[in-house]
Amino acid sequence: MWPDRRILDLFGIEHPILQAPMAGAQGSALAIAVSDAGGLGSLPCALLSGEQVRNELQVIRQRTDKPFNVNFFCHQPPAADAAREARWIERLAAYRSELGVDRPTVPGGRAPFNEEMCALVEEFRPRVVSFHFGLPEKALLDRVKRAGSRVIASATTVEEARWLEAHGVDAVIAQGAEAGGHRGMFLSEDIASQPGTFALAPQVVDAVRVPVIAAGGIGDGRGIVAALALGAAGVQIGTAYLLTPESTISAIYRAALKSAREDQTVLTNVFTGRPARGLVNRMIRELGPISGEAAAFPNAANATLPLRMKAEAAGSGDFTSLWSGQAPRFAREMPAGELTRELADAALKRLRAIT
Amino acid sequence: MWPDRRILDLFGIEHPILQAPMAGAQGSALAIAVSDAGGLGSLPCALLSGEQVRNELQVIRQRTDKPFNVNFFCHQPPAADAAREARWIERLAAYRSELGVDRPTVPGGRAPFNEEMCALVEEFRPRVVSFHFGLPEKALLDRVKRAGSRVIASATTVEEARWLEAHGVDAVIAQGAEAGGHRGMFLSEDIASQPGTFALAPQVVDAVRVPVIAAGGIGDGRGIVAALALGAAGVQIGTAYLLTPESTISAIYRAALKSAREDQTVLTNVFTGRPARGLVNRMIRELGPISGEAAAFPNAANATLPLRMKAEAAGSGDFTSLWSGQAPRFAREMPAGELTRELADAALKRLRAIT
Repeated sequence: MWPDRRILDLFGIEHPILQAPMAGAQGSALAIAVSDAGGLGSLPCALLSGEQVRNELQVIRQRTDKPFNVNFFCHQPPAADAAREARWIERLAAYRSELGVDRPTVPGGRAPFNEEMCALVEEFRPRVVSFHFGLPEKALLDRVKRAGSRVIASATTVEEARWLEAHGVDAVIAQGAEAGGHRGMFLSEDIASQPGTFALAPQVVDAVRVPVIAAGGIGDGRGIVAALALGAAGVQIGTAYLLTPESTISAIYRAALKSAREDQTVLTNVFTGRPARGLVNRMIRELGPISGEAAAFPNAANATLPLRMKAEAAGSGDFTSLWSGQAPRFAREMPAGELTRELADAALKRLRAIT
Repeated sequence: MWPDRRILDLFGIEHPILQAPMAGAQGSALAIAVSDAGGLGSLPCALLSGEQVRNELQVIRQRTDKPFNVNFFCHQPPAADAAREARWIERLAAYRSELGVDRPTVPGGRAPFNEEMCALVEEFRPRVVSFHFGLPEKALLDRVKRAGSRVIASATTVEEARWLEAHGVDAVIAQGAEAGGHRGMFLSEDIASQPGTFALAPQVVDAVRVPVIAAGGIGDGRGIVAALALGAAGVQIGTAYLLTPESTISAIYRAALKSAREDQTVLTNVFTGRPARGLVNRMIRELGPISGEAAAFPNAANATLPLRMKAEAAGSGDFTSLWSGQAPRFAREMPAGELTRELADAALKRLRAIT
């Protein structure tokens, strides 16, 4: 059926389709639907507290016995830089006046994968744990592996892929520049030189021995077959799932995505302080796409979130991070399980058609 | 053998492989070698005089009876802007001092496709004529078509592909952001939103009825099969041919390309005034990658060319446009005909392997 069984066996799944973890856009429901359909569903934990992670993992365990993926960020928390944060808050003053929003206090940002999250992994032992922005420190990583989880992580260059393999991952996600949301880059710093999926995937395949999962710009059966042709063992798909009922994005975000074109996304740091791909909106046009003034990740988000909340309440997506890859036209309004099965069927049909 | 015969029949070729026209990096020899091997060789005319084009076309006609492609630029010549050009020349003053180069006079730049070139097309009637930066005016385009040439052109977005189809092309080249050399963009202006091949190709396939040729990041059999999987009828490959003996690039350029990585290219306008992808070197680092000061295309090149010539004579590629796509590792040191046959064989082998 599938020509390459490497990640099917590694993850215990039926189709080589990983649903990309999309923090802020989904919870357990999407993960469950995809896993139940034979793909690998993912729970993004970057924006969740330990208690929220526990609740979500309990829901997943109750609703499915299929393998799933739990995803964490591994960024280095930024050094304290009160002046930089104050400048960023000041930069947004005119927007606060316009919207009637108070000056934000700056609480701590999202924590990277830590002791508390590691203990939850040990307790729930998900089949797969994926990391973004590199890997956690060795002691924590070893604990994840001892818990029995397969470890995967994103590489945006060949060098990052080699680094991940050397540090013990079971598979590498080759995240091409087309991908929506945060670039997983952790050794690279230059977004101008980030390679696209078509170039990145085969060069990563040639550079590492572990299986490679292609990500970025993939959203239909043709893309899955193309990724396999490039030597990938499977794909990670995000944007295509954003219009499913299991996605938790707002009506504003859904509407923007439905009319989005392939040439309307950019890499921007204005929402969080790290480069991420999203649909161009007012905030990106006026402050970015890349701003030298943005506070470091994740602190930049503390100052932009209140603007987003207020604007959204008034029906505007001007300050919302509308993450999207470069294939928004492939987002489908159908249940995520059905979409997963359709993707697999379409890919298998396409495989037969081209030979 | 090949699952899709559309461009094989359209162009009269054996393999769905177009050799990308690379002005300044090749002449008739590369085109002849590729066409003789069953691909579609291309003669880039953007930097040639009418007399040079005639000579090259005569050589091709003498050496092969296979179909070939003749390529022209279709940019709008820039409005005269003496102040802007003077500023650009001034911007480069320190480099001229360093290298001992005279202040350049600014002669006219490369002409876009015109009456003289059209007459040559009518005389030699190449099977295929390809255009970059849009299409020529209708009267000239009609003459090319009446001469019996199939017309193809580059699109960097879905909108550009639709525009090209509406204006009568026989096939569209979907040029993803990975591609080396000049972006073919003519409606789009924003390089930050240019889609990668993986996202662009299938969305163009869905938007037009004519066959789509995928370009950008493709350099081996895997990439050819991936492009076919995405719905493309064929591929255009450039960088992979740059190390063949038929390529005319300098030893400096060859050496740079041999050690190049996938994450060492950027889109830059500092060499010619239009965005093009090349290996990062001193000139890009110090002036770009995108400079608001660069004179308009093609006039910017008049001021940079003398620096390039002097630096190269001293063994330095600091001021050379080292055009490369994002898959430089796939460039091969072998005769271009042999490379074309190897690419076709590898693709057919890969097709069988994934099914």
